[in-house]
Amino acid sequence: MPRRLDGGAASFESDFRALLDDKRETAADVDDTVRAIIADVRTRGDLALIDYTARFDRVQFTPSRFRIGADEIEAAKADCEPDTLAAMKLAATRIAAFHERQLPADDRVVDAAGVELGARWTAIGAVGLYVPGGLAAYPSSVLMNAVPAKVAGVERIAMTVPTPDGVINPLVIAAAEHAGVTEIYRLGGAQAIAALAYGTETIAAVDKIVGPGNAYVAAAKRQVFGAVGIDMIAGPSEILVVADGENDPAWIAADLLSQSEHDESAQAILITDDRAFADDVAAAVERHLATLPRAAIARSSWETHGAIIVLDTLDDAPALVDRIAPEHLELAVNDPEAMMARVRNAGAIFLGRHTPEAIGDYVAGPNHVLPTARSARFSSGLNVLDFMKRTTFVRCDAASLSEIGPAAATLADAEGLPAHALSVRIRMNR
Amino acid sequence: MPRRLDGGAASFESDFRALLDDKRETAADVDDTVRAIIADVRTRGDLALIDYTARFDRVQFTPSRFRIGADEIEAAKADCEPDTLAAMKLAATRIAAFHERQLPADDRVVDAAGVELGARWTAIGAVGLYVPGGLAAYPSSVLMNAVPAKVAGVERIAMTVPTPDGVINPLVIAAAEHAGVTEIYRLGGAQAIAALAYGTETIAAVDKIVGPGNAYVAAAKRQVFGAVGIDMIAGPSEILVVADGENDPAWIAADLLSQSEHDESAQAILITDDRAFADDVAAAVERHLATLPRAAIARSSWETHGAIIVLDTLDDAPALVDRIAPEHLELAVNDPEAMMARVRNAGAIFLGRHTPEAIGDYVAGPNHVLPTARSARFSSGLNVLDFMKRTTFVRCDAASLSEIGPAAATLADAEGLPAHALSVRIRMNR
Repeated sequence: MPRRLDGGAASFESDFRALLDDKRETAADVDDTVRAIIADVRTRGDLALIDYTARFDRVQFTPSRFRIGADEIEAAKADCEPDTLAAMKLAATRIAAFHERQLPADDRVVDAAGVELGARWTAIGAVGLYVPGGLAAYPSSVLMNAVPAKVAGVERIAMTVPTPDGVINPLVIAAAEHAGVTEIYRLGGAQAIAALAYGTETIAAVDKIVGPGNAYVAAAKRQVFGAVGIDMIAGPSEILVVADGENDPAWIAADLLSQSEHDESAQAILITDDRAFADDVAAAVERHLATLPRAAIARSSWETHGAIIVLDTLDDAPALVDRIAPEHLELAVNDPEAMMARVRNAGAIFLGRHTPEAIGDYVAGPNHVLPTARSARFSSGLNVLDFMKRTTFVRCDAASLSEIGPAAATLADAEGLPAHALSVRIRMNR
Repeated sequence: MPRRLDGGAASFESDFRALLDDKRETAADVDDTVRAIIADVRTRGDLALIDYTARFDRVQFTPSRFRIGADEIEAAKADCEPDTLAAMKLAATRIAAFHERQLPADDRVVDAAGVELGARWTAIGAVGLYVPGGLAAYPSSVLMNAVPAKVAGVERIAMTVPTPDGVINPLVIAAAEHAGVTEIYRLGGAQAIAALAYGTETIAAVDKIVGPGNAYVAAAKRQVFGAVGIDMIAGPSEILVVADGENDPAWIAADLLSQSEHDESAQAILITDDRAFADDVAAAVERHLATLPRAAIARSSWETHGAIIVLDTLDDAPALVDRIAPEHLELAVNDPEAMMARVRNAGAIFLGRHTPEAIGDYVAGPNHVLPTARSARFSSGLNVLDFMKRTTFVRCDAASLSEIGPAAATLADAEGLPAHALSVRIRMNR
């Protein structure tokens, strides 16, 4: 059974702190291995990629085969079930529609001093998208990363995906092609990150790398950061469900398990004000687990990291939500809007009794790449702005420089930066 | 003399690549020292802060004196020159006016499927602002970090500034108070970063830490990232001036030196299409250096990292600008708007002959915390969004879930995530 916390208990604050401090990730120390791989790719380029791919993915090829060809892409599409392809395309359409609303406006103004100033948004030139191979190869994740980049106007989207033993996930390839990925390379691991960051003879370097990956990929992204931009390093999935006693316990139990099934480090938490309902949800979890194919993973996550918190009143829930700052927050209550208004920290919020979190993983439209491990206190889910950057601009003429220049020179004097002051005053003396 | 590159030379591409690869920073390896300090502050709290401050800043105090009191703030303000205070306040007003225009709008829509969805922006709850002591204590930097946080709606802005030998920079304190900093602590170094990130008995933890610092501070920020958010780690200053031969060489020389004087690792580059003008600028740099107080630093930067690039035509400049991706870009040409339209990568752009970069350091309004070391390819200057985060939300009812739910369940099946599919289908069977 997962831990139970009682809002009325004297130990509640210390129990809650222990829940917040729950360590769910043991980062493997792969930094030295990764550093060597990156250095080797920088030195030997394509030859290093060939060697590592033979060793790790058991695939032998030449640089001309790094890139997945148009014929293979067509073959992959033909391999997909028509229903699944249609669902993928519906998802892509809805994700694009939501993200298009995020496109920022440029700004320009001439102020009272006569200074013209503003800000201009431009797309990042080239983005690398890492996609894991094997079990964690999620076509939905391809869409969630590639579609916002495309909407932002990124001209070049280079995807890498390992093909262990030569196996390609056809729906991943179909999703990439549909989302506008411009190049797909059958490469993975730290070597793929190094190739994207620094380039090789056949792969041009990108400006930013996004996408999930294992410990080697995460370490490689951290190490190349600076040479290129990176997205957040995602931790294990989380869901926090705030539910009153009027919900169907089987629905809420399914929602909790939809995150628990991701991996053993995932975390599912229920907050309710109804003790009997809490028991019913716990029982419903057991019933679902009896039939679910991924029950072993889900049970481990639920029993090790799950929690049920019973409060005297759900009025106390928003303050706890903000401290947990969950990746996913379901508000299965009568007035979810009112509760949302009282919450500050959450990656994505699912309102009402008919909005399971999984709808957001696939087709709702908002991004499913969201801040984990309490980072919703200070960061946002992936969005169009992550694929753009803002450049500010200023234009003075002789008159407006005379208006604001003296204050700039005074402050430069105060900071002991005489060339700064000189560059202003030299233009004001004529 | 700085290096000269000739756009028409056969060696130009390799010369230009060497310029891009110019290593200007040698990061001191202070990771182990910093790790020990952070661990100690987490364990011993205020006592550790007392010990490190005695050792590094030669100041003995008790926790009740960590925080700078209202009386000391008033005394600091009284210590400032009235002209300087007025200039600081003009700067704050202009920075606030520019940043208020960045406040994002929330979004909400009901789409054709009947799904209600949108995104809501909220301010980060508590921000820590690190301010260096000693020579690099820049009041302008306090404004550039604190004002956007205030505009974003951050409720708590906790600033730390070391006071070596007890010395306080009065203008730094006055700027902090004017900008709306809520707490000021006389602490510095990795110990201050640890206190902000994890809290101590007297200092409450924050959600994000911003502000410049030395190698210890930068390493500490990297190490606490995750527990809190951090801003970018700023590298040495850079300026790229694109100037035709119609400029006054003395003006352009002053602009180049305004960055060179920051420190020996700074970089100033001139691109022109006029060889005689290039010579004139180089000569004007020498004339300025003969009288400038910070000439030793500026000369070292200019001769070691500076460059003059002469092109056949300034038509070729935008492509080079994008590869350099400078922190500051001056376009001192006849039609700077046309050239700006052809540039993708720059932190901030200064248009025309009467807009020295230094005007943007102090009073123009846009932020002076800008991406360095070519990171303008993928990141933006500090802005209001850095102090906010976006939460998306979705609401389905039974009807709209029936519209989009089947596609979600199909994709969950394809990805092998049965509890995801269950959480959708269980709501569609009644």
